[in-house]
Amino acid sequence: MQALTFIKSNKWEIIMRDSNRPSLEDVAALAGVSTASISRCINSPQKVAEPTRQRIQNAIETLGYVPHFGGRALARNRTNTIGAIIPTMDNAMFASGLQAFQETLSAAGVTLLVGSSNYDPDQEFDAIRSLLSQGADGLLLIGAARPEKTQAFLTQHAVPHVLAWCCPKTGHSPSVGFDNQKSGHDIAAHVLAHGHRKLAVICGLREGNDRATARVVGIKQAIASQSDAQLLGLEECKYSFEEAGAAFAQLLTGPEKASAVICGSDVLAVGALLQARKMGLRVPEDISITGFDDISLAQVTTPSLTTVRVPQHSMGRKAAEVLLALLNQEPGQNLRHELMTTIIDRGTLARI
Amino acid sequence: MQALTFIKSNKWEIIMRDSNRPSLEDVAALAGVSTASISRCINSPQKVAEPTRQRIQNAIETLGYVPHFGGRALARNRTNTIGAIIPTMDNAMFASGLQAFQETLSAAGVTLLVGSSNYDPDQEFDAIRSLLSQGADGLLLIGAARPEKTQAFLTQHAVPHVLAWCCPKTGHSPSVGFDNQKSGHDIAAHVLAHGHRKLAVICGLREGNDRATARVVGIKQAIASQSDAQLLGLEECKYSFEEAGAAFAQLLTGPEKASAVICGSDVLAVGALLQARKMGLRVPEDISITGFDDISLAQVTTPSLTTVRVPQHSMGRKAAEVLLALLNQEPGQNLRHELMTTIIDRGTLARI
Repeated sequence: MQALTFIKSNKWEIIMRDSNRPSLEDVAALAGVSTASISRCINSPQKVAEPTRQRIQNAIETLGYVPHFGGRALARNRTNTIGAIIPTMDNAMFASGLQAFQETLSAAGVTLLVGSSNYDPDQEFDAIRSLLSQGADGLLLIGAARPEKTQAFLTQHAVPHVLAWCCPKTGHSPSVGFDNQKSGHDIAAHVLAHGHRKLAVICGLREGNDRATARVVGIKQAIASQSDAQLLGLEECKYSFEEAGAAFAQLLTGPEKASAVICGSDVLAVGALLQARKMGLRVPEDISITGFDDISLAQVTTPSLTTVRVPQHSMGRKAAEVLLALLNQEPGQNLRHELMTTIIDRGTLARI
Repeated sequence: MQALTFIKSNKWEIIMRDSNRPSLEDVAALAGVSTASISRCINSPQKVAEPTRQRIQNAIETLGYVPHFGGRALARNRTNTIGAIIPTMDNAMFASGLQAFQETLSAAGVTLLVGSSNYDPDQEFDAIRSLLSQGADGLLLIGAARPEKTQAFLTQHAVPHVLAWCCPKTGHSPSVGFDNQKSGHDIAAHVLAHGHRKLAVICGLREGNDRATARVVGIKQAIASQSDAQLLGLEECKYSFEEAGAAFAQLLTGPEKASAVICGSDVLAVGALLQARKMGLRVPEDISITGFDDISLAQVTTPSLTTVRVPQHSMGRKAAEVLLALLNQEPGQNLRHELMTTIIDRGTLARI
C-alpha cells in the first residue's frame, strides 16, 4: 500500500491506495522514464516531447493505469452524485444524451445534477467549482476546449471527469464522443455528391466551442478538395431560430446565390428553413439546407431535415459507464471512445 | 431579537431573527390563534379546520410572513447554489422556463443545479435530498403533487422552495405558475367554438402529475358544458412522439371519428401530427389537433401547432425572484403568482 495525498474541500486527507492497481512507478518502468516525467506529461503535456508522450500514453493504456483519479476515487465519502455541465438547456440540443447518461447513473444508484454554462467558460468554471465543492464525485463536460485555469483546476483537484461530444486525440481526459471535423467533412462531401457547387455555411459561435470549430474545418476541407466548388459565405450566430434566420437571409444577399446551406446544428437549419419559407423559397427545390445533430426538431419539419445523426443515446450511456468505472477504479478501461455519426437523408437536400 | 432553532444537515443551530420581520407571534395575534396552531397549520395543514387554516393563511399573507424559511434563510453558510428538479430534460419541455430561471439566478451570482425525476416521485425525493445534503440554499420544484414523505421532508427541513408550472390555491408552498385546469378548459372551449362536437384527448400519464390531471379536468368540463359535444375517447401515454402516435391511431379505430384531438402537450400533439401524416390524414382538413405549452417544436411543424402558450420565460424569471427574495428574507413578497396562458392560433385547428 502506498499513501497518496490530495486536496479535497481545502483540507488534506490521506488516502490508501490498493496495491493491486498499476502504480505511477509501474507506468514509469514500462515507459522507461522517470515518474516526474509522467507527472509532467499528465499536467503539462505540451512540455513533453511527442515520442515520450506517446510512450507514456501507451504504457498508461497497456497497464490500465487510471491517471489522476486514483486518490479521489478511493475517498470514503462518496456522495453518489455526479455533475454534468452542458452549454445550454435550450432546444434539447444535449437532452437525449443527458437523459441516457442519467438513466445509466440512476441504475447504479447515482444522482445526476446538471449545470449550464451558457457557452461561457467563466460560467462553466463556476459550475465546476460549485458541483465539486458540494461533493460531486465526478463530472461530465462537453467538448475539450477550456481555458488553462479550468484545466489546471481539474488537474490540481484530480477531478474524475469524462468529455463528451468530442474525442480529442491529444490530452489526457477520458472522452466519449465523435470526430466533429470528420462529421463536418462527411456532410459537406454528401452535399457535394448531390451536385452542389455553390455553398454557404451557418455555424454557431466558434470561440471556445471546439465542436462548432471542428465541424467548419471539416466542411471547408471537403469544399476545398473539390476544385469547382465554392464557399460563397459563412455566417456565425447563436443557436436560435431567429439568429439563424437572419444569417440565412444575409447569406442570400450577394450577387451569387448558394444552392445549398450547410448548417452546423439542427437548430440553425430549422431557423434557416423557417426563414426560407418566409422569403418564399421552396426547400429543397429552390435551396437545399442540411442540419447536424438529429435532435427531435429534425424530424418534425416539412420537409424533415437531412442531417448528421450524433449517437447521443449511446454516447450518454457510454460516458456514464466510463465515469462509473473511473470512480470504482475498475481496471483495464478504455478511456477514449470514438463513436460514429451517420448521415440521415430526409427531405431538405436536392440533387442538382 | 428572538432565537429560532432549525435543523440543517442533522445538527441544530441557533439562528437570530431580525425583529423587523413579522414574527410567528404577529401572525398568531392577527389570526386570533395560538402559535402552536400556526405551527400545526404549517406542518400538518390537514389537521387544522378549514376556517382556521384560511384565517391563518390570510394573516400570513397580510403580514408578508415567510413561513418556514426564516431560520434557514439566515444560515450563514449559504452556498449560493439553488437546485431545480424537473420531470424530464427531453424535448425541452421545461427548457425555456429553466433558462430564464437560471439567467435571473446567474445575474444574482447564484449557480443553478438541475436534477431530473423522470416523472418518478422516488427519484424526485432522491434528487431533493441530494441537492440539500450538498448544500443547495433553495429549490425549484415542478407541480404541487408529491407524496406525503416528500412534503414532510420539505417541511421538517424548512426547505425554501418555489413551485412552478402550477399555482395551487391551497397549501403553503410559494408558487409561480398558472391554472392548468382553466387553461385546459380554455383550449377545449376554443376547439368547441370552432364547431367541433366529436372530440378526443391525448394526455400524459396523470398519476403523480397534477398538471396533466388538471388540464384533462378542464377539458372535460368544457366539453360537458356543451350539451351536443361528445368526448369519444381519451388516451394516456408518455411524452414521446411514438407513444402519442400510437395513442392517436388507437383513438381513430372506433366507429365514430373525432374531428379534433386535444393534446395535453405539444410533444403529444406533434406525435399525433406525424402519425396523422403516416395515416394519410390531412391536418386540419381531415382532423384538427391542438397542443399545449408552445415549446419550440410547436412552431416548426407544417402546419404549425395551434396551442396554449405557457409563459415559461416570465414564470422562470419570477420564480427565481421569489426564491431569491425568500433566501434574502425580503419582506412583503407575494408568495403566489398566477400567470396567464394564451391560446396561439396557428394552423392545426379547422373551423367546421
